[in-house]
Amino acid sequence: MNASIPIPNLPWQDRPSSSRDIVWRYSDNPIVTKANIPYANTIFNSAVVYRNGHFEGVFRCDDREMQQKLYLGSSENGIDWTLSDQPLTLYNTDGTPAGQACGYDPRVCLIDGRYIVTWCAQYHGPTIGVAWSEDFRTFYRLENAFLPFNRNGVLFPRKINGKYCMLSRPSDNGHTPFGDIFLSQSPDLEHWGCHRYVMGACGGWSWTKIGAGPIPIETNEGWLLFYHGVATSCSGMIYSMGGALLDLEKPWQVRARCKPYLLHPEEGYERVGDVPNVVFPCAALCDGNTGRLAIYYGAADTVVALAFAHLDEVVDYILQHAE
Amino acid sequence: MNASIPIPNLPWQDRPSSSRDIVWRYSDNPIVTKANIPYANTIFNSAVVYRNGHFEGVFRCDDREMQQKLYLGSSENGIDWTLSDQPLTLYNTDGTPAGQACGYDPRVCLIDGRYIVTWCAQYHGPTIGVAWSEDFRTFYRLENAFLPFNRNGVLFPRKINGKYCMLSRPSDNGHTPFGDIFLSQSPDLEHWGCHRYVMGACGGWSWTKIGAGPIPIETNEGWLLFYHGVATSCSGMIYSMGGALLDLEKPWQVRARCKPYLLHPEEGYERVGDVPNVVFPCAALCDGNTGRLAIYYGAADTVVALAFAHLDEVVDYILQHAE
Amino acid sequence: MNASIPIPNLPWQDRPSSSRDIVWRYSDNPIVTKANIPYANTIFNSAVVYRNGHFEGVFRCDDREMQQKLYLGSSENGIDWTLSDQPLTLYNTDGTPAGQACGYDPRVCLIDGRYIVTWCAQYHGPTIGVAWSEDFRTFYRLENAFLPFNRNGVLFPRKINGKYCMLSRPSDNGHTPFGDIFLSQSPDLEHWGCHRYVMGACGGWSWTKIGAGPIPIETNEGWLLFYHGVATSCSGMIYSMGGALLDLEKPWQVRARCKPYLLHPEEGYERVGDVPNVVFPCAALCDGNTGRLAIYYGAADTVVALAFAHLDEVVDYILQHAE
Amino acid sequence: MNASIPIPNLPWQDRPSSSRDIVWRYSDNPIVTKANIPYANTIFNSAVVYRNGHFEGVFRCDDREMQQKLYLGSSENGIDWTLSDQPLTLYNTDGTPAGQACGYDPRVCLIDGRYIVTWCAQYHGPTIGVAWSEDFRTFYRLENAFLPFNRNGVLFPRKINGKYCMLSRPSDNGHTPFGDIFLSQSPDLEHWGCHRYVMGACGGWSWTKIGAGPIPIETNEGWLLFYHGVATSCSGMIYSMGGALLDLEKPWQVRARCKPYLLHPEEGYERVGDVPNVVFPCAALCDGNTGRLAIYYGAADTVVALAFAHLDEVVDYILQHAE
Amino acid sequence: MNASIPIPNLPWQDRPSSSRDIVWRYSDNPIVTKANIPYANTIFNSAVVYRNGHFEGVFRCDDREMQQKLYLGSSENGIDWTLSDQPLTLYNTDGTPAGQACGYDPRVCLIDGRYIVTWCAQYHGPTIGVAWSEDFRTFYRLENAFLPFNRNGVLFPRKINGKYCMLSRPSDNGHTPFGDIFLSQSPDLEHWGCHRYVMGACGGWSWTKIGAGPIPIETNEGWLLFYHGVATSCSGMIYSMGGALLDLEKPWQVRARCKPYLLHPEEGYERVGDVPNVVFPCAALCDGNTGRLAIYYGAADTVVALAFAHLDEVVDYILQHAE
Amino acid sequence: MNASIPIPNLPWQDRPSSSRDIVWRYSDNPIVTKANIPYANTIFNSAVVYRNGHFEGVFRCDDREMQQKLYLGSSENGIDWTLSDQPLTLYNTDGTPAGQACGYDPRVCLIDGRYIVTWCAQYHGPTIGVAWSEDFRTFYRLENAFLPFNRNGVLFPRKINGKYCMLSRPSDNGHTPFGDIFLSQSPDLEHWGCHRYVMGACGGWSWTKIGAGPIPIETNEGWLLFYHGVATSCSGMIYSMGGALLDLEKPWQVRARCKPYLLHPEEGYERVGDVPNVVFPCAALCDGNTGRLAIYYGAADTVVALAFAHLDEVVDYILQHAE
Repeated sequence: MNASIPIPNLPWQDRPSSSRDIVWRYSDNPIVTKANIPYANTIFNSAVVYRNGHFEGVFRCDDREMQQKLYLGSSENGIDWTLSDQPLTLYNTDGTPAGQACGYDPRVCLIDGRYIVTWCAQYHGPTIGVAWSEDFRTFYRLENAFLPFNRNGVLFPRKINGKYCMLSRPSDNGHTPFGDIFLSQSPDLEHWGCHRYVMGACGGWSWTKIGAGPIPIETNEGWLLFYHGVATSCSGMIYSMGGALLDLEKPWQVRARCKPYLLHPEEGYERVGDVPNVVFPCAALCDGNTGRLAIYYGAADTVVALAFAHLDEVVDYILQHAE
Repeated sequence: MNASIPIPNLPWQDRPSSSRDIVWRYSDNPIVTKANIPYANTIFNSAVVYRNGHFEGVFRCDDREMQQKLYLGSSENGIDWTLSDQPLTLYNTDGTPAGQACGYDPRVCLIDGRYIVTWCAQYHGPTIGVAWSEDFRTFYRLENAFLPFNRNGVLFPRKINGKYCMLSRPSDNGHTPFGDIFLSQSPDLEHWGCHRYVMGACGGWSWTKIGAGPIPIETNEGWLLFYHGVATSCSGMIYSMGGALLDLEKPWQVRARCKPYLLHPEEGYERVGDVPNVVFPCAALCDGNTGRLAIYYGAADTVVALAFAHLDEVVDYILQHAE
Repeated sequence: MNASIPIPNLPWQDRPSSSRDIVWRYSDNPIVTKANIPYANTIFNSAVVYRNGHFEGVFRCDDREMQQKLYLGSSENGIDWTLSDQPLTLYNTDGTPAGQACGYDPRVCLIDGRYIVTWCAQYHGPTIGVAWSEDFRTFYRLENAFLPFNRNGVLFPRKINGKYCMLSRPSDNGHTPFGDIFLSQSPDLEHWGCHRYVMGACGGWSWTKIGAGPIPIETNEGWLLFYHGVATSCSGMIYSMGGALLDLEKPWQVRARCKPYLLHPEEGYERVGDVPNVVFPCAALCDGNTGRLAIYYGAADTVVALAFAHLDEVVDYILQHAE
Repeated sequence: MNASIPIPNLPWQDRPSSSRDIVWRYSDNPIVTKANIPYANTIFNSAVVYRNGHFEGVFRCDDREMQQKLYLGSSENGIDWTLSDQPLTLYNTDGTPAGQACGYDPRVCLIDGRYIVTWCAQYHGPTIGVAWSEDFRTFYRLENAFLPFNRNGVLFPRKINGKYCMLSRPSDNGHTPFGDIFLSQSPDLEHWGCHRYVMGACGGWSWTKIGAGPIPIETNEGWLLFYHGVATSCSGMIYSMGGALLDLEKPWQVRARCKPYLLHPEEGYERVGDVPNVVFPCAALCDGNTGRLAIYYGAADTVVALAFAHLDEVVDYILQHAE
Repeated sequence: MNASIPIPNLPWQDRPSSSRDIVWRYSDNPIVTKANIPYANTIFNSAVVYRNGHFEGVFRCDDREMQQKLYLGSSENGIDWTLSDQPLTLYNTDGTPAGQACGYDPRVCLIDGRYIVTWCAQYHGPTIGVAWSEDFRTFYRLENAFLPFNRNGVLFPRKINGKYCMLSRPSDNGHTPFGDIFLSQSPDLEHWGCHRYVMGACGGWSWTKIGAGPIPIETNEGWLLFYHGVATSCSGMIYSMGGALLDLEKPWQVRARCKPYLLHPEEGYERVGDVPNVVFPCAALCDGNTGRLAIYYGAADTVVALAFAHLDEVVDYILQHAE
Repeated sequence: MNASIPIPNLPWQDRPSSSRDIVWRYSDNPIVTKANIPYANTIFNSAVVYRNGHFEGVFRCDDREMQQKLYLGSSENGIDWTLSDQPLTLYNTDGTPAGQACGYDPRVCLIDGRYIVTWCAQYHGPTIGVAWSEDFRTFYRLENAFLPFNRNGVLFPRKINGKYCMLSRPSDNGHTPFGDIFLSQSPDLEHWGCHRYVMGACGGWSWTKIGAGPIPIETNEGWLLFYHGVATSCSGMIYSMGGALLDLEKPWQVRARCKPYLLHPEEGYERVGDVPNVVFPCAALCDGNTGRLAIYYGAADTVVALAFAHLDEVVDYILQHAE
């Protein structure tokens, strides 16, 4: 297990005695539903960070117009959340208003004292929006990181070789039936280059496409990346969660990629909803003292759910089941 | 609220105290299932009228051959229905038999003493079948209103500017991925022209297509039109119900279109069935004394369900949430 | 041979001695090219009538913006044409201007002293525009005959059973890969009903779709209908011309449909152009004295060409080669 | 009813008194789930035979890599199954190892003392794998029966006219949107010819495609074939089970095909899972003494379920409801 | 160079002095056009054999109904052909008539004294028809070799390891956008098995699909196979001709596959026609004395053309340009 | 007219007296064909610069394997070209070899003394390759500018606001049926950001997609951008050339966009070839003394052709025909 900060109040349940799974679900899932925001249709695929002893989050809420926007939320225990009933407003770096945070599937990365939100923004097609905040209250928007069409932009929590690094998944303008993970590098969060292929869709549960999930977690064995993989049946896509370890200094190199998935839709709230059969991880918090992991994931494009794991076990499992 | 006839025995439940929704569901949904007709596979998307103190209906039943046909039914309270176990037989206007009523998604409109059924008939592609009855027992079939391909033909309950008016949705021969609502006019129910565009699919919950639902209800603010709107996820279409107000004398002009939906699949019987995630309204009855609305809708292409609303509230909500 | 008016100056060339074809080409094809209108990209698929001893036409010209509009033209001999350099302007029936005639593939029908133009207009999708003129100078526009999506609207040159009759081809919004011919009836050119299936795409050269061509010609054996049929290769569509005879009083009934095509792309101007491999007939004039036929057709969506035939031979050939 | 061997311990429940269905479900479905094999994702679409007083089976298990492989299992009562936790290993006919049995949707046919497994193997596309065993322990693999692309290979339980007969469904490389049943003949299980069309997709519940299910059962009225038929909604495919009777000596001739389906997804375990709305029969055992039928079918591409029927009733029902 | 019979009157022209191509065209191409058969639309993709000092052929003619049928033809010099004006009639092996030879793209193989025609027949989809003749006058039809969907069946000119061997290309029912070459084996021309993958579509000029062309020619370096490869542009498919050498005794093993094509559409008759940009070889004759090759190929799906090469040069070129 | 360097030997022909076109063709087109490189299949879509009194070029040559690579060429008069018979070899910036220049559709931009080639390279999908040279002999490759999928990267000939500016067209992995032009900015040619939408596909000749063509030319009225626009017929795509003027300092702002095209396929070498109906401009040279323009464009994906214009006339025409 590698160094990360202690999170003494990290949500936690021990693995059920009946289970031998590496990742297991919170027994009172889902933890966030449409009831958390008036006028909401669904709340899912949301990101969470630990800050000053409590938890803050950026939530995807599709409202009853099915407009996709980001909302802030906070929690003392990481399970019971209070969400804003208004979408997050963004500002330009000169302090002028930049409108509501439209888009979806946010991730939040703490790096050098700034909380950086990346999400799927719309600019003549989907691409990666970037905004940062020092106080989790006022968020400043930068220009989009990439040209359209792109989704699932995920930052690393420290500069590598002096540059910011971001994973992303070039896509198309619809329900993209393909997609691989690339890594891009930037001196300033605004200009990106040195784009490198990381890994692609492959057989089984991820044959259609893959996309990075939570902010990678640094371990002795490499960056632990949870990601979603998609298979397509005759009735639609099935989203599962897998894991991989990337090289610490050359993170575009895959050290180990776990062949089996780590989580697959099985419970009712994952199987039934606006989009059936989806687990979509967007955040993973690790308690530096115990190695306990709390993984936040969207379920069925309808609710937010929570799962648990031990960091060491996950790393070992990936190494043992690597291709 | 506008004039309509009293329906003292209209089905009704007050809004649950926990809800602030404009439209709410009947607590004992679904009200009609396959159990109502032997040999049925599913019964859904059906139309209901108030007649002589009780309720009559034309039901879509897909039988175990998955043949789509219309069946008659009646009810004293609008909730407990007795359905014919044989498909409706049609007659030509000269009294000769015209075969069973094959097709789907009927609407029924009372106009000038005649009950006019419009439905999706098959004639070298889907188009709008038209039949009328004075006694709800013997139905006379006219020629189809339009060339194929068309669906969701919905009549207005009175002539406007001296002509019959019908909404419809030009479509294709399959699971049409597009579709706007048009209005056509006729002196005689047989020849149609002066086709006018009314409104189209737009962002959010109705970005794929829309189609008129129940017979429009006349109000001081215009014709109240409930309609279905369709969004498409990576796993199929999602049908919600919205509302709009059309100009009373130029009903192809939209006075107000409600941005949020009014009803969205949420209950198990709407989320799971032959086609998941469908609410599809086909009839709305209004008690002229109280303004209570009973909305009949198909759920998951499997059963018939019931929802309630107050006419005044619906009109206000549309006006307040119009684009 | 049946009655039609004499056209002494009908364009004509005898069949080449080397040919045994029923329809043969004019040796100086094409007769109209982009050179006929400044700013034109292409001129093709155009309609021609005989009027007061000379010839008038409504031409499809796609300009260098590739905007599709109709232009008037006239000719003394039916071969050398003078075209207007401005698009045709339409008027409403109340005399107010109705804008330029946007659209494509016109046909012109003389009926009861009025020249009626039908063409593919755009109104939330392609549909059949209708306009009429008594002097071939001022054209009054009616509302579109049908709901979208429709193309190839072709009128019969007299009322049948007291109604106007129009052939059309319900289609989709793109390069429609299907399409059958239907007949609709109207008391007033504005309201249409009694839609009847006439004939559909079938194997061989017309397996993809068919569409009516010139105004049908009345003969003792029925209405002679030239139509285009489309086959689709791995590199696109191939448009040929075929023939059929429709019942005189029940013109939705096919008396004979010629199995072989009558004209197929073969010459360079038919094989190479903006759309390769297209012959698309829009007008056929018959000299009542001799039975000579002059058929005007678009070639390769680029130019207008001319072909000849004897009416009697065509009718006999269809009868002998009917399915 | 026709001759088949007695199976005194055949699983059985009488039809519920409330039901008039010809085929009814086991009340404790599903009988096999992912819990039966560690590392399994799903177990479904599996074949069962009666052997030496107990039951043996070949099971489709998709593991957590979503690799599709075959596993052996056995049961004393046909309901409670013990499955191997390792995939079935195949051997070449010379005794050398031939790798694991990769593929899906097995059927097992006892013929001339050999248990012959046919399944969907992958060889540059899906095609029909063939392997046989005399002891249900060691299975010898032959070369694939057909060129790709093919699925649902089902053998008859005796030679007909001196040849092995196999039903199959030519398909494509994906979620095939078409498919008819053909019959092929072979002197040696290795070379196949005399391919004959048996029956195809048709309207209603099987309009998209069909595929043979369990090994046909010989009756006085012909070979009883249960098969799956597929309809496609706007949200995916719906798999139902139907029945037909094929001529005993010319089994490519359909004697009777039942218009209504016999089983349709209705229960939660059939409606919700990795692929919603699937019943997919792979085996049907008949007790020669009583004519009781136990039908094993996959549900929702997730579990194995069981249904019951009386052979005589099924045959009568098919004959009475034939097209 | 390997043994093959002398063909002293093989068509021939020396390579133009300006060319360094391995395969060059006949200067008076095309050699067969629609003029060779009355009522023909096109004649192309045809097979030719040397027999008793002259040449016989089986020709694909699409008539003016665009019905695809086979016609016989003969020639003294292999260039000037006399074709039958009636389609080839087939007989069953019991001597009863089996109808006209419907289908396309024939090949003819002399083996053990019989001329065996294989072609793309239609039987619930395209598949490989087989017929044989001893006198090139009376042809007996066998059942189709394979299940649909299949095209481009090409026999080897002798049994290998005691079995007939046939190349084919499993396909779909339309303008197949994929396709690899497989080899199947048969003891009797009727039952086929031991299906082996030979080679597939790969980058460049054959990235979409490939299909065997003429009967393979036995050389010391292996079976010389000319085949077509297809690339797809934004405007359709482009058919080129390539070459490969297959192992003499294990002909499913590729010894050498030439990376560059050997012939590509370039001349007007290859670039313009019913299907632009097609060269499609169906026969290659080799003079045993000189090693001269005459290759017959269809051009633009419209005419038959002829190309020449030296056998030794082709084999050397393939070996030198193999992957 | 704006400043650019004199090119006294610029290729030139006066406009034919019969023409009133703004852009006219060289009378001896094409100027480069497959004959210019042995083993070539086609040479087209190539870029040219003026250097030291003569002309240098980077040519797209698809060889007979249909491998797409770049080749150097030079010319004294800009018309007669000598091309290398070997693909261009690239070097890394550290001087190590970087392989052949694989890819297509090069542009060359002189900026600050370096010749920068941008082209469509392949890196897990098409994207924009970048390489530079000071001597037009040794080219150093940088990492790709953007993530896939992208094409038609075109640099501006000077830094704007201190940054390099590049136009590009985000696309997909195939024959992209959509596409707009964006502008990206970079401090170092390696990291790109501040992506701005410039203009998109619109009606008529460019309704499918557009892409930047030659390096923009600075004029008093803005940057003159020639670009290609694509319309799609039922038989494929049609590529025309248009023009626009972009703001000098905010080049993502369109000052004027010419509604009509400037060049459209019309000549045989533009209409017939590997891809019919293509004109695709990649370079435009302007003589600073006279304002004469020589435009190099690919024709039919087969050859290189040349057209002429007067800079002032082009600018005026765009301004007069702007939307």
